Amino acid sequence: MNGADALITTLADNGVTACFANPGTSEMQFVAALDREPRMRSILCLFEGVATGAADGYGRMAGKPACTLLHLGPGYANGAANLHNARRAYTPVVNVIGDHATDHRQYDAPLNSDIAALAAPNSIWVRSADSADTVGPLTAEAVAASFGAPGGNACLILPADSAWNETNTAGPVIEIPQPAAPDASAVAAVAAAIKAAEKPVILLGSSACGEAGIAAAGRLAAVGVRVLTDTFTARQSRGEGRFRPDKMMYFGEQALKDLTGTDLMVLAGTSQPVAFFAYPDRPSVLVPEGCDLQTLCGREVDAPAALNALADALGAPAGGAVEAYVEPAAPGPKFDAWAMGASIARHMPTGGIISDDAVTAGLPIFTQTRNARAHDWLSLTGGAIGQGIPVALGAAVACPERKVLSLNGDGAGMYTVQGLWTIAREKLDVTVVIFANGAYRILGIEMGRTGGGEPGPKASRLLDLGDPQIDWVALATGMGMPAERVETAEAFDAAMARAMTTPGPHFIEAAMR
Amino acid sequence: MNGADALITTLADNGVTACFANPGTSEMQFVAALDREPRMRSILCLFEGVATGAADGYGRMAGKPACTLLHLGPGYANGAANLHNARRAYTPVVNVIGDHATDHRQYDAPLNSDIAALAAPNSIWVRSADSADTVGPLTAEAVAASFGAPGGNACLILPADSAWNETNTAGPVIEIPQPAAPDASAVAAVAAAIKAAEKPVILLGSSACGEAGIAAAGRLAAVGVRVLTDTFTARQSRGEGRFRPDKMMYFGEQALKDLTGTDLMVLAGTSQPVAFFAYPDRPSVLVPEGCDLQTLCGREVDAPAALNALADALGAPAGGAVEAYVEPAAPGPKFDAWAMGASIARHMPTGGIISDDAVTAGLPIFTQTRNARAHDWLSLTGGAIGQGIPVALGAAVACPERKVLSLNGDGAGMYTVQGLWTIAREKLDVTVVIFANGAYRILGIEMGRTGGGEPGPKASRLLDLGDPQIDWVALATGMGMPAERVETAEAFDAAMARAMTTPGPHFIEAAMR
Repeated sequence: MNGADALITTLADNGVTACFANPGTSEMQFVAALDREPRMRSILCLFEGVATGAADGYGRMAGKPACTLLHLGPGYANGAANLHNARRAYTPVVNVIGDHATDHRQYDAPLNSDIAALAAPNSIWVRSADSADTVGPLTAEAVAASFGAPGGNACLILPADSAWNETNTAGPVIEIPQPAAPDASAVAAVAAAIKAAEKPVILLGSSACGEAGIAAAGRLAAVGVRVLTDTFTARQSRGEGRFRPDKMMYFGEQALKDLTGTDLMVLAGTSQPVAFFAYPDRPSVLVPEGCDLQTLCGREVDAPAALNALADALGAPAGGAVEAYVEPAAPGPKFDAWAMGASIARHMPTGGIISDDAVTAGLPIFTQTRNARAHDWLSLTGGAIGQGIPVALGAAVACPERKVLSLNGDGAGMYTVQGLWTIAREKLDVTVVIFANGAYRILGIEMGRTGGGEPGPKASRLLDLGDPQIDWVALATGMGMPAERVETAEAFDAAMARAMTTPGPHFIEAAMR
Repeated sequence: MNGADALITTLADNGVTACFANPGTSEMQFVAALDREPRMRSILCLFEGVATGAADGYGRMAGKPACTLLHLGPGYANGAANLHNARRAYTPVVNVIGDHATDHRQYDAPLNSDIAALAAPNSIWVRSADSADTVGPLTAEAVAASFGAPGGNACLILPADSAWNETNTAGPVIEIPQPAAPDASAVAAVAAAIKAAEKPVILLGSSACGEAGIAAAGRLAAVGVRVLTDTFTARQSRGEGRFRPDKMMYFGEQALKDLTGTDLMVLAGTSQPVAFFAYPDRPSVLVPEGCDLQTLCGREVDAPAALNALADALGAPAGGAVEAYVEPAAPGPKFDAWAMGASIARHMPTGGIISDDAVTAGLPIFTQTRNARAHDWLSLTGGAIGQGIPVALGAAVACPERKVLSLNGDGAGMYTVQGLWTIAREKLDVTVVIFANGAYRILGIEMGRTGGGEPGPKASRLLDLGDPQIDWVALATGMGMPAERVETAEAFDAAMARAMTTPGPHFIEAAMR
């Protein structure tokens, strides 16, 4: 075998069996080796931001890494924004970044760049396999690193000669790193603090928002602890049969108002809440003055176990509060995100997965799906728009038996619009919705909040997507997706009903202009 | 004024009057300030790779920087691949990268990242303006840095509070850095070496390929020196009335064969030629064995002056060899890049600008336009596909009176397809051609060369763009561009004739499947 075979074999031996790729010349040996490893599924993406976002979505749902295949420094850079989001989601991802042959690097050919330096800010592990014999062992290290805990993205740089040279060395099968056990003294201290507090809140992030964590948090709610989640969570179990906590409000002043009187905030799998952006004369830290801040567990800890230990210490009953399914009424005449959220709640089947890059439409839909059937909600964790389509793509590869719904603002959707082609090509069961309001609507709100005042003509034009109007149905059909445009709440409801009962790709432009 | 005003005023005072932008919340003060500075033209791009590629195209044609406006680390990362190309083109660019307010950075909010570290590999200058008073002076420094010589991209990080706080300090008007004068001893040494050589070659890069450099090189050709250019040049003056040198062949073995017998290679505004990629058992350095390598001037030097000094030292006459315009025949029945190149040569008016991201179609068209009317050719300097549409966009903003032609492989075109919207929105005089062969054709060639052998089914699928077939006319019209599909050489010729005689945006899908 050559180094490329060692890489793919080691990946597959360690359960990494999905590869989201946009290869170039330096990656041709990896591409050729795919035909010698039937366990690896390779999926072509027409832009690297699609590949990395897909790996994020895959990792969030599969609980193990996919790999990406990227073409030198520029290929990595094209995928870096969605790796920023993946970093903030603590998603395990293994990036394979092709490089020039080791003896060619010194000549600084046009595609040469400092890949390790580019990758460092978003990576938890970066290594270059500078000989064929090191490829297998470093691949195993990369997989282990990606699991964390907490997880993150690991970058293996693969020089072309390390791929084409022969080797006998595949990497070992690793022991998958497990999160740390809860710290008993932290549990006891937090339990005591909660008993002493008048208005305690526990804030959940990372694995505390998965199915087991949410169930444990429901036990805490049953004994009077208010439960909140981070504003943006990597993966949150919601809907029928689950406990549904509130979330931290997006705008800091609203969050602090919501927390008025809170005298204890306990962190579980997250860190001190802070404002998404700073604004003149508004606070950055979203902990009320005088509120005690305590940590039950960091992100590296088994949060469900910590939450259950805390619930036990507080004498909470085994079963906590859960939501029932409530069939929403058919939408009325008003066509807005609230109505569309009701339609999603009406039609999304049990086991749905929502990839949320909907910006201003996101919160209404999140609210409306509180009582929907059981589903997972994947948020934009890092604020880099353009993950909604790719994350849905990856989630659908990870969970082929589940319906995936990709919700996107039109500004966000344009960022990685190329992902539609891969959804069509792979015939994935993904329904993509674009909320086409013809504007970066959130920025119209933020302009005033940052002290920019009323936008003048030039500023307004930088927030406007309506000239020319984007024909989303043309874009989607141009990339092979069956697509329709809806302009009323009733039409959206009907389109959603069809999409949720018919397998395969669907595209809905919700024309909100 | 606030820091944002100081920034934009200082830019405009220094002749930076075009801004390619995709702003977010942290950049709202900059956006608001645009309405207070009439000299700055702001252009919205729906993805940062479009903005940075446009700034590259603008800088290549204007000879001065445009600025970009990017949203924190992820916004920069999205634009980094085209900044890699701009780095390799030595194009002056000023990137303004918004950041969190200085006192908010410590909280590591979701969009926080190490912007300076991300930007370092592709930048010649990175600074953060951490108070409003430093914004103006650092802006002037950034502009100066971008000019070089040679030029490059400078990154000014702009924290939100530095933008919104008041200041009295605008930056100075800088003295534009000039390239160094030629070194007389280098000129004398090279002249002596050329006289002694049997088969001398001079290799041109960077400013040696502009109008004055090419004219001076024509003088050298007239006295028997073979003139070559780098395979990919940032901007090359070509066509009627200009001297047209050959270029270094792309594949190393072809390049070395072409150089057989060469006993002296002189570098003018470039560095030692190397293979674009390494391959097993093929050389990296493209200088024949035993060939002497000498440097007339580095990229920081006034290359036309150095070439003229050399021509004088060799006793060359004042006027060198130039090409005449030769009207190509109407294309025959065969529909390929050679035929399309002839059509472009037939119809492109004097002063045309070609942005080349055409990959396998590029060389035939380059060859066919040798005797076209006078034009500038802008190559893919860094190998990161996805610059053809953005660079054309920026060139058209820099040169509104000139016809711009954007040539793109379909794989390359998909990378920054969002640029079509901005071309339509700004009604730019750009004709975009997509060579739709439904494949990453170049990779089919490279697979064998890298030792990957015949691609199997999985490998083939990673090189294939034809399933589903991309409907380029739908994509272009969906973004507001008038578009047509042509499937014969005759139809392409007619479409090119129309596009070259009608101002405004045109889109042609050349369906070569």
